[in-house]
Amino acid sequence: MEVVLATGNAHKAKELEKILAPHRVLTPADLGLDFDCEETGATYLDNALLKARTLAELTDKPVIADDSGLSLPALGGAPGIYSARYGSEEAGRMLEAPERNDFLLKNLQGIEDRSAFFVCSMVLILSEYRVYAVQETLDGEITSDQSGTGGFGYDPVFYLPEREMTVADLSEEEKNLISHRGKAGAKIKLILDSLAP
Amino acid sequence: MEVVLATGNAHKAKELEKILAPHRVLTPADLGLDFDCEETGATYLDNALLKARTLAELTDKPVIADDSGLSLPALGGAPGIYSARYGSEEAGRMLEAPERNDFLLKNLQGIEDRSAFFVCSMVLILSEYRVYAVQETLDGEITSDQSGTGGFGYDPVFYLPEREMTVADLSEEEKNLISHRGKAGAKIKLILDSLAP
Repeated sequence: MEVVLATGNAHKAKELEKILAPHRVLTPADLGLDFDCEETGATYLDNALLKARTLAELTDKPVIADDSGLSLPALGGAPGIYSARYGSEEAGRMLEAPERNDFLLKNLQGIEDRSAFFVCSMVLILSEYRVYAVQETLDGEITSDQSGTGGFGYDPVFYLPEREMTVADLSEEEKNLISHRGKAGAKIKLILDSLAP
Repeated sequence: MEVVLATGNAHKAKELEKILAPHRVLTPADLGLDFDCEETGATYLDNALLKARTLAELTDKPVIADDSGLSLPALGGAPGIYSARYGSEEAGRMLEAPERNDFLLKNLQGIEDRSAFFVCSMVLILSEYRVYAVQETLDGEITSDQSGTGGFGYDPVFYLPEREMTVADLSEEEKNLISHRGKAGAKIKLILDSLAP
């Protein structure tokens, strides 16, 4: 099956295509669509639904949207749905991922509880009323230093005790097997497989 | 796997258990839980999420909730999320299903477009952030008379042109294969199967 991912980031579409294979993942740009959507929802699920519904209005193809973030109980759940913008208000500009990670590490100085979890909400829309949503998590801890060159975002500071490495130290294949986004994608793949002719 | 359905209706739990078999479906009453939840959401999905989250606060077991309704384009989508209460305001009391069906047939007098669709949203919650939602539909037409003794609710007025009968004329097994609730349950079963040890 061919689906369109609500993103402007071709790399994200390629990553999801590996998770959903043999299904194909296109971007709005591949279809010449001008997709843009402000993430104004109050939850990951709201944001994923909002993006998926906005894209579904532009195409008759099945669409997928996802929203992810990092939560720390010690920070009251922050950065949460604001993960991508974390620290940007303080800096007066959008931070790059390594700067965001430094900002997070700084905010955790002196805090003992470094437990954290990633969340990914992923939504598939086939038609206005045929909608599927899954939300998966990945538990871990925040390191004291950044480590690893794989992945993106908070991966270099997200430590997996069982693996004794950060998510950024994992290969792409390993990451897709255990990550919040990989697990959410695997559930969406189950649904896509059940629909395929 | 053993799940708890957010309902006070043991019959609904039994019906879902057939759809999800071999998984077992309990009711809150089976666990001695006092479950009650007002359906104040603006959509089927909102209501199913609301019921599931309310029940999930009462138990550590996986929970399922669903919300269904009937929509008619000719009536601007009514009765929609108010399907169970349709006509009750006019009557000054909660109507029984056959009365609701008569109320619907009366409202459709002289209206040519009798197309209609059922919607079912079903939500599975494993833990606060592990959430799965599916929404499925069933397309048909509203008959001019009630027919059939199976099913419940609007089934006796919901005609399936391909089958040349109403949903209430179907056997329970046939209904579970094609209905909005049966199809939503089949997707939730895919997810439960993938989680089972």
